[in-house]
Amino acid sequence: MSRPLILVTNDDGVNSKGISALIEIAQTFGDVFAVAPNGPQSGKSHAISLEKPIGVSLLLKSDTLTKFSCTGTPVDCVKLALNKLMDKKPDIILSGINHGSNSSINVIYSGTMGAAIEGFMDGIPSIGFSLLDYNEDADFSACKHYLGKIIDMALNMEDALCLNVNIPKLASSQIKGFKFCRQADSNWQEEFVPVDEINDFDFYWMKGSFVNQDYEQDTDEWALDNGYISIVPIEFDFTEYKALENLKNIEL
Amino acid sequence: MSRPLILVTNDDGVNSKGISALIEIAQTFGDVFAVAPNGPQSGKSHAISLEKPIGVSLLLKSDTLTKFSCTGTPVDCVKLALNKLMDKKPDIILSGINHGSNSSINVIYSGTMGAAIEGFMDGIPSIGFSLLDYNEDADFSACKHYLGKIIDMALNMEDALCLNVNIPKLASSQIKGFKFCRQADSNWQEEFVPVDEINDFDFYWMKGSFVNQDYEQDTDEWALDNGYISIVPIEFDFTEYKALENLKNIEL
Repeated sequence: MSRPLILVTNDDGVNSKGISALIEIAQTFGDVFAVAPNGPQSGKSHAISLEKPIGVSLLLKSDTLTKFSCTGTPVDCVKLALNKLMDKKPDIILSGINHGSNSSINVIYSGTMGAAIEGFMDGIPSIGFSLLDYNEDADFSACKHYLGKIIDMALNMEDALCLNVNIPKLASSQIKGFKFCRQADSNWQEEFVPVDEINDFDFYWMKGSFVNQDYEQDTDEWALDNGYISIVPIEFDFTEYKALENLKNIEL
Repeated sequence: MSRPLILVTNDDGVNSKGISALIEIAQTFGDVFAVAPNGPQSGKSHAISLEKPIGVSLLLKSDTLTKFSCTGTPVDCVKLALNKLMDKKPDIILSGINHGSNSSINVIYSGTMGAAIEGFMDGIPSIGFSLLDYNEDADFSACKHYLGKIIDMALNMEDALCLNVNIPKLASSQIKGFKFCRQADSNWQEEFVPVDEINDFDFYWMKGSFVNQDYEQDTDEWALDNGYISIVPIEFDFTEYKALENLKNIEL
């Protein structure tokens, strides 16, 4: 097999420490093609730019690493990479390493995971990585060994998968290993803090507190709380099949 | 039961024809509290505003109808309504009527459905409505009778559901009825059309063509192609359980 081609992206921006760490890990596996936002795009979920054009600028090009900055969302970056910038389909897409958790319900808000899911929708194995440390100067060194193992697994699987990988904020020696999990049932409770009044608009900062209601041992939250790296396989079929079975009996 | 309290939102903006039609239908069922974006927010998926404050302005207040304009995304609108603007929890959330399809894979990009899913995450019955007509002057009159039936059903169900409802672009007399369906397996093929070069950035408009690969009779695409209104029940657990079962056998 020739050297794999790896598309790397994220939602914290092309200059974040997390994507630099991920590119470094990815380069031990193959040639890296990075297309990432030119600024923070956290919380952008699966958003795409329909109302404005998307800009892209080449930052760096060598035999083994190409790097673009993009004005769009993380999903825009993946679409642009796959449909315009890359000469051939990547063997895998890696998104992150996110500065902060994308476990449980966070997956739905996450730009990191939006990008990974977009790649998977095109049949490409995709992994989103997140470290449970929101600091922009977070220490990603503990990740390297473990992330390499997951990338190696995903590259060698028969069927493409999309994986949501979260890493506890622990020293490498304290990490107990991996757990394959389901998404815990959790949500956010928001508070709106008034900041300004401009014309007829009252402006608020949205602040949230994460609330987990699900402490079962098969969840990602349990794994992370207990020193494991959580790996949740992700799908993009939103159909609630159990409800569908019941609805079929209804006469409307 | 007292008159239901109905939260209405959308992604095309508070002044779109689709939300006016939905408010009119909703008012036949209960008191309406509308919080919707101050401009187009199509394709915003489940995005939230983490990098900037959210502005909100009261447009109208009567005994039976309150209406706010909001600078945030559709999901921001729902969070702001539930956590700041409303005195009590709504009995149901209605999102739309979207100008254009949110069937099959479109659900993942849709701001209309992002808003509906956000409400459902709080345990509130939620419905996203979309008409397969992208025209901003689309004719929503055929919808009224059918949408009323769905709202009535959702208000009277024991368990909260989130429904993705799409309506074919047909005269009322040509609509054959409803089908409860699963999301068809489809995707978009993008093309990037160059428009400009500013500083070091090349700018492109993203244009897409919808590709359906799934013509089974239990899909939303089949229902719509055959003159039915499609109703897909939606979940927010992204775990791919089948893959999870297989992964559990892997030693990492």
